[in-house]
Amino acid sequence: MSADLHLTPPPVQHVVLAENGMQLDNGRSFGPFTVAYETYGTLDADKANAILVCHALTGDQYVAGTNPTTGKPGWWERMVGPGCPIDTDRFFVICANVLGGCMGTTGPRDADPATNAPYGLDFPIITIGDMVRAQALLLDHLGIEKLFAVIGGSMGGMQALQWAAAYPDRVFACMAIATAAKHSAQNIAFHEVGRQAILADPDWMAGSYAFHGCRPKRGLSVARMAAHITYLSEAALQRKFGRSLQDRDALSFGFDADFQVESYLRHQGSSFVDRFDANSYLYITRAMDYFDLAAEHGGQLADAFRGTKTRFLLVSFSSDWLFPTTESRTIAHALNAVSADVSFVEVETDKGHDAFLLDEPAFLNLCRGFVDGSAQQRGLTPHPSEVKRVRGPLMRTDLRLIGDLIEPRASVLDVGAGDGSLLEFLVHDKQVDGRGLEIDPDGVRLGVAQGLTVIQGDANTDLADYPTGAFDWIVLSRTLQTTRDPADVLQQLVRIGRRAIVAFENYGHWRARLGLLLRGRAPGRAGAWWENPNIHPCTIADFLELCASRNITIERAITVGPLGHVRDGKLPSAHANMLAEQAVFVLKQS
Amino acid sequence: MSADLHLTPPPVQHVVLAENGMQLDNGRSFGPFTVAYETYGTLDADKANAILVCHALTGDQYVAGTNPTTGKPGWWERMVGPGCPIDTDRFFVICANVLGGCMGTTGPRDADPATNAPYGLDFPIITIGDMVRAQALLLDHLGIEKLFAVIGGSMGGMQALQWAAAYPDRVFACMAIATAAKHSAQNIAFHEVGRQAILADPDWMAGSYAFHGCRPKRGLSVARMAAHITYLSEAALQRKFGRSLQDRDALSFGFDADFQVESYLRHQGSSFVDRFDANSYLYITRAMDYFDLAAEHGGQLADAFRGTKTRFLLVSFSSDWLFPTTESRTIAHALNAVSADVSFVEVETDKGHDAFLLDEPAFLNLCRGFVDGSAQQRGLTPHPSEVKRVRGPLMRTDLRLIGDLIEPRASVLDVGAGDGSLLEFLVHDKQVDGRGLEIDPDGVRLGVAQGLTVIQGDANTDLADYPTGAFDWIVLSRTLQTTRDPADVLQQLVRIGRRAIVAFENYGHWRARLGLLLRGRAPGRAGAWWENPNIHPCTIADFLELCASRNITIERAITVGPLGHVRDGKLPSAHANMLAEQAVFVLKQS
Repeated sequence: MSADLHLTPPPVQHVVLAENGMQLDNGRSFGPFTVAYETYGTLDADKANAILVCHALTGDQYVAGTNPTTGKPGWWERMVGPGCPIDTDRFFVICANVLGGCMGTTGPRDADPATNAPYGLDFPIITIGDMVRAQALLLDHLGIEKLFAVIGGSMGGMQALQWAAAYPDRVFACMAIATAAKHSAQNIAFHEVGRQAILADPDWMAGSYAFHGCRPKRGLSVARMAAHITYLSEAALQRKFGRSLQDRDALSFGFDADFQVESYLRHQGSSFVDRFDANSYLYITRAMDYFDLAAEHGGQLADAFRGTKTRFLLVSFSSDWLFPTTESRTIAHALNAVSADVSFVEVETDKGHDAFLLDEPAFLNLCRGFVDGSAQQRGLTPHPSEVKRVRGPLMRTDLRLIGDLIEPRASVLDVGAGDGSLLEFLVHDKQVDGRGLEIDPDGVRLGVAQGLTVIQGDANTDLADYPTGAFDWIVLSRTLQTTRDPADVLQQLVRIGRRAIVAFENYGHWRARLGLLLRGRAPGRAGAWWENPNIHPCTIADFLELCASRNITIERAITVGPLGHVRDGKLPSAHANMLAEQAVFVLKQS
Repeated sequence: MSADLHLTPPPVQHVVLAENGMQLDNGRSFGPFTVAYETYGTLDADKANAILVCHALTGDQYVAGTNPTTGKPGWWERMVGPGCPIDTDRFFVICANVLGGCMGTTGPRDADPATNAPYGLDFPIITIGDMVRAQALLLDHLGIEKLFAVIGGSMGGMQALQWAAAYPDRVFACMAIATAAKHSAQNIAFHEVGRQAILADPDWMAGSYAFHGCRPKRGLSVARMAAHITYLSEAALQRKFGRSLQDRDALSFGFDADFQVESYLRHQGSSFVDRFDANSYLYITRAMDYFDLAAEHGGQLADAFRGTKTRFLLVSFSSDWLFPTTESRTIAHALNAVSADVSFVEVETDKGHDAFLLDEPAFLNLCRGFVDGSAQQRGLTPHPSEVKRVRGPLMRTDLRLIGDLIEPRASVLDVGAGDGSLLEFLVHDKQVDGRGLEIDPDGVRLGVAQGLTVIQGDANTDLADYPTGAFDWIVLSRTLQTTRDPADVLQQLVRIGRRAIVAFENYGHWRARLGLLLRGRAPGRAGAWWENPNIHPCTIADFLELCASRNITIERAITVGPLGHVRDGKLPSAHANMLAEQAVFVLKQS
């Protein structure tokens, strides 16, 4: 296969594809080429349980089990395997080395059939789109028409997004982790430093080092060192190394690796050159730099997903500065803009970009929830250990009233979805197309694990991302008075929903009035005034004033008085401000 | 001077120092050595107006005027010059090339007198402490006993801090910008990548490239490219370059610099090698890595500054991820812990670390304020254009009452210092040792510009940094009800101040009660309920309950009733909760 040093044994599973050539994004036809891949688990009779896992820049096809090259566990051992979130007892998992790679799939160090010498720089520049196209050919070869899911982190996440955009009918669910819809200027800059380090190494020999029997080890090592810093976070480096010294008690006053972090980085560099090909590094970094899903669709990222039926989960990590949360939010916004089914969570961690490869329980549980929930929607056999939901009636008065207001099969956004009770009721008893927005990541995780669609977000800031008139109903219960800017939130609600339902506790109720009048105590819920989450308490009269000032029409006012007495009308009664303990309003933009 | 290629003409001003050697931190004696420096402005008769400016990693002594090497303006042209914040019409400004540098001060490319060949790796490892020691010898040579100020950014800030720690009696004011008291693991890691890139270049020749007539241009260029990314921010790179292409309409599908950011970086790398010496880069990065002011003082950063009389200003930039704001806060905390006179501001900008070199008006104004305020305190002739403060009496009732409570020459922390009115009154009319804490950077800037000492910070989070019993008085006026956690803030107040003064608006006042009773409107200030900054409104009775629940003793209660009637007593009267519009309490920990 390759005239280069054989760094790795030949892959166990591989196939020659594109006998007549495959059209690349650069306009050239390329092929035939070899794709090396691994599979785990068993494909079911319907071929409906296939999950494609896409690897990152320096990953390989050995996602689970034991890597035959290194003898170490697969690179995602905690995610993929029997009983893992991506459960190989239930799913048929495929992972293929990317086109341009150096683990068995054809790349620059393999022989060019035209010359029988290694491609070197004659290998064509490939893109994420080309990688995905090659994977689609592999699926054709395996006879899999539609993936249950495509899943990947970092560059693997780029491939997952590309899959959903290029083959919407072949992807039921898509999980894109710690990734972006385009490579940022800063990330291109870091890749360029790595490439220049390789190109500066005299042993690179203009890419034909294999022909000359050498390898640009020093350049590749520097490239890896620079890149490796970007995979961690400052906090993680501080926690792991700080300024601790390596095998010495005092500074050496020299250029040795005095600090542990230096020694660690040098090791990262030197061990990398033993397992990776420098030209592959050039080609794959270039493919990432070229990735820009919006540009491929006329500049509008949303257009990459218009009409999609795929169910998405986006995950970011709070300390990831290579693919920061803003990148995932950009994708979530684009998917929201085309009313796609998208959940999103930012996982709190100090582990940086690499967190997606590590043992982060919150992250693994989230993925398990999404996979299980999606499998249920897809009608796959549920996992035996899967927690059966015991659904009871809605217990809170306000939620019951809201549930009654919404007609079956409507589209609903529940802002402040909490543990998903209302959303679950609406989805299962009224077959609504329901979405949640929830600030607490635990709430989002719980919702996603129930098969619901929930985006982690803040009503104070993230409503602006939803398009106008995106939902039949938008619901805000027991939340308005906790927001920083109730007037702005209310305006967003009536913009996004054709109807908005706002429920709140009435501070004008006689008990609150008498408390201040007779006892001189600020009105509030049970508990200390200084812990009251309702930082903007209001009465029904106050609320009416706000609606009037913002030209918001009240269509219906439901108030709940003493002993649960419910009054339902066009406007609250004259006494409601005094007597009602809770109020539920149906609003719309005037 | 040097057997190396002469990159630069010999410096205009230089002096040979340490004829008998200077003791280095590595234990060796070194010298004589040359220090190249520039001066601007005129030293006054008292030699009291000298400002030492310290340059950063790749800077030089040409801080102002025209750099004779490049023909370009000095590197801090907006900061230093006639009429600038560091005004060369008023101050005598000195800037010296650091020891180990390559702009005239002795460094590794200069000739070792022992061999008459360039030092190369025989140059001793130097530290920030050694650089500062050499500068102190320069000041001795110039006959300057005490600096009016030492000022620097980045590595220059490290030198400024080192000056204040090592020579506390020689520094009246210290301005440390975008810097840290130690180099972080991440920063060491980036430096190590740069060094390894240089060491990987065959033309480095184990440091003796000058002898061999070559230079490690490729390695130094890669080092500079990697470092340069860290000087910017992702947002700045996005704003300046995004994914824009360089001189082409479409991707080239090759390894050319398709993207502007690549072209820019390559230029940064290649232009750097023309002006900087690779070995100097190794030595100076090492000096930064070794910097750890706390370690030099038994592990406690505060001990580096114990007893200091120096006036400090710390400045960080919000998008600087190389020396992030947390690093400046760490220094501020250490200075607070020894009750030093420290002001601190985080300047909002997307320009990253390099912001300190750029035209940031907010930053330049801040520096001007600090320099002018310090000059006033030092008794230097004020700048003719300096705005004369017109001080009137305190207008707000609560501030007048508070002003009356505090005895002359007490130490006071004003939390939520606003525009500094109270602080200024206390400092000038009562000669108190006053400090402010203010969340709004404009307020801090205003205060600093008046010669006051103000730290930018948030009562919700930053009070924890002050030591117990640090002040005679701590003041919180019209702020308690705006905090997220009033109970926690109150406990911090009585911990930090031997006495705390808390003033607030009473929501139990009869007007508020009647408003809710009769009109059913939530109590609040004039204006809409949804814009009320008092997110935790409370009455006098509520406040008494909180104090009781936290074992806080009320020593004195002053209430202001209708028509400004003031009642002063041990506790509020029985009617105060109903009648008082404002309340001022003196509290202490029980």
